[in-house]
Amino acid sequence: MKKKISILGSTGSIGVNALNVIRNISNNFKIIHLTGNTNSELMIEQSREFNPDSIVMTNEAAAEKVKKELVNDGVEVLSGRNNLLKTAKNKSVDLVLNALVGSSGMEPTLNALKAGVDVALSNKESLVVAGDIITAAMNSSGAKLFPVDSEHSAIWQCMIGESLDDIERIILTGSGGPFRERPLKTFDNILVSEALNHPNWDMGKKITIDSATMMNKGLEVIEAYWLFNMQVSQIDIIVHPQSIIHSMIEFKDGSIKAQMGVPDMKIPIQYALTYPNHLEAPWERLDFAMLGDLSFQAPDFDRFPCIKLAYLALDKMGTTPAVLNMANDYCVYKFLDEKINFTDIPVIIESAMNNHEWTENPKLDYLKELDLWTENFVNNY
Amino acid sequence: MKKKISILGSTGSIGVNALNVIRNISNNFKIIHLTGNTNSELMIEQSREFNPDSIVMTNEAAAEKVKKELVNDGVEVLSGRNNLLKTAKNKSVDLVLNALVGSSGMEPTLNALKAGVDVALSNKESLVVAGDIITAAMNSSGAKLFPVDSEHSAIWQCMIGESLDDIERIILTGSGGPFRERPLKTFDNILVSEALNHPNWDMGKKITIDSATMMNKGLEVIEAYWLFNMQVSQIDIIVHPQSIIHSMIEFKDGSIKAQMGVPDMKIPIQYALTYPNHLEAPWERLDFAMLGDLSFQAPDFDRFPCIKLAYLALDKMGTTPAVLNMANDYCVYKFLDEKINFTDIPVIIESAMNNHEWTENPKLDYLKELDLWTENFVNNY
Repeated sequence: MKKKISILGSTGSIGVNALNVIRNISNNFKIIHLTGNTNSELMIEQSREFNPDSIVMTNEAAAEKVKKELVNDGVEVLSGRNNLLKTAKNKSVDLVLNALVGSSGMEPTLNALKAGVDVALSNKESLVVAGDIITAAMNSSGAKLFPVDSEHSAIWQCMIGESLDDIERIILTGSGGPFRERPLKTFDNILVSEALNHPNWDMGKKITIDSATMMNKGLEVIEAYWLFNMQVSQIDIIVHPQSIIHSMIEFKDGSIKAQMGVPDMKIPIQYALTYPNHLEAPWERLDFAMLGDLSFQAPDFDRFPCIKLAYLALDKMGTTPAVLNMANDYCVYKFLDEKINFTDIPVIIESAMNNHEWTENPKLDYLKELDLWTENFVNNY
Repeated sequence: MKKKISILGSTGSIGVNALNVIRNISNNFKIIHLTGNTNSELMIEQSREFNPDSIVMTNEAAAEKVKKELVNDGVEVLSGRNNLLKTAKNKSVDLVLNALVGSSGMEPTLNALKAGVDVALSNKESLVVAGDIITAAMNSSGAKLFPVDSEHSAIWQCMIGESLDDIERIILTGSGGPFRERPLKTFDNILVSEALNHPNWDMGKKITIDSATMMNKGLEVIEAYWLFNMQVSQIDIIVHPQSIIHSMIEFKDGSIKAQMGVPDMKIPIQYALTYPNHLEAPWERLDFAMLGDLSFQAPDFDRFPCIKLAYLALDKMGTTPAVLNMANDYCVYKFLDEKINFTDIPVIIESAMNNHEWTENPKLDYLKELDLWTENFVNNY
């Protein structure tokens, strides 16, 4: 029987890779919904190849274009965020791949889980912003989260068949991004184009900037906290510039399990879609004889203060991780627009964390208020 | 309830390490039998600390010494190989650790499995010599083999919870031993002391020489063939000089799982004794920030012809792997006695493989005959 799947954010980097994966194993899947924002041309192509039941474009103008072009294709075309949120609730779907970018991806995750639908989660911000609300929804509906991030996929794969009690710690690897060795005193002059030039991974813009600040690793620490039910003290980071080992777990006897592979998001995406199986795949394999040396170093918190902020947010808990994440979203877009410097990013985030109205158990409505507050705070900084 | 365990070869390197492991988690084990060969002093110490029900020394004189010293300790002291073989058959034992060295370890493995007792197997020669007989015994009694070799323990750990069908290949890592970079034309002059100087692992003499010739890796290929039910074409070797990654499996989607750790046999020994749990352990941990680079290279079959011979033996099957292993045992002892050169080892083994009377499905009695034939063949070469 074909697995019925929705892809939220199908025109983004993860969405496109997911469709590349599905193309190779298309007998296993029936695509129910595709959603996008503004890229109408790509959505039209995707619709013609993959025949979804419906499409949502959150941008109205883009929706109109898609609707016009596909008028004879028998596909329903909807527009706006409300329809995106409705799409995520469709109980007849077996799996939602949430490949949306940023904090706005959180509500769709929550909607799917509440509806009892498993979520392949690329949108790590969901857990950073609302880890406790999402965990409660999972406990209540029984729906599961399957990580798509290469690091969390690695940890998930290493945990298969093992007992949580036997695990001493998890070790997230991170490449260190493009500025691992750049002189710290030149960080004020970092250009957008330099920050977008990741040494190993070909990813979307937002996550590529997050890799350059290493906030990405910080968000992953928070994501791992919720996904794997670990204590903060059990989550470590090691810089591994080659991005071959995607992450590790260490057991209480000192044995370490690692998941490795070429740095290609299609591997963790396919695993999240086909779990618990590893299906045949046509892509490049790791060739150890041709592989250079693998190296490791401790993360440099002075160089990458965003990591420190993420651990701090986990210590403070309550609304602090949400504000960290929201402020980071807005700062990254302001940096991409060349409105702030690279080094302003952690300064503004820390200030937002310290100045927002903290509460211990935020409801969804307060998180939405906080998002507006944070947007204002960052814009007026 | 305490696990009742026998340690065959308790005074050897693996046996001593196993008792070091058990010392830390002694509440989990009751030692039933310890066996040794000639080292009466160490056996007396071990008996006083670990209180076995009985001791077997295969050497008669050593048995006499142990018996005399322990006369008031309430421990039964037996002698000779027959008593070793009987000890292995004790059905009231939960687990036999077979830490015997060489082909003579095969029958005790078989006896335990036939009696329905699980075996933690350090004696890889058991499977090399009689893989089909041992597999048949397991199938008939339901008893299991738990690998102790660091490489096979790694693969076993990586396979936990996974489906065999999803695995594309297994990748055995090997340090390449002390002669990985020594000029090939000086191999005739290799001294015993040089061959005994392993760069990473502190092991017994036999296996240290096997590491220097890389026959150890060849035997491991054959052991993996039987342990993991793999095709020969699915078993690869990669040289990894630092011995940090202990081996790997690659899935059909290109995802690779690796098991890593400090090169300390206590980790795989403890796992074999406590499977499926990873119990707390006091030894040194891997420190990635302090770890140097990890490197990899293809195995050099010209430099290490023993690897090629092992793959050849798997192709020919029948009695050939047994003769490879038996001839290797005798050659290693002759090399340690300075009776033959390092480079004679593969030459003599290959000649024995080619000259013995091959049969497809050897019975145990014919394997014993072959062992005598091989001993003669090597001595008269």
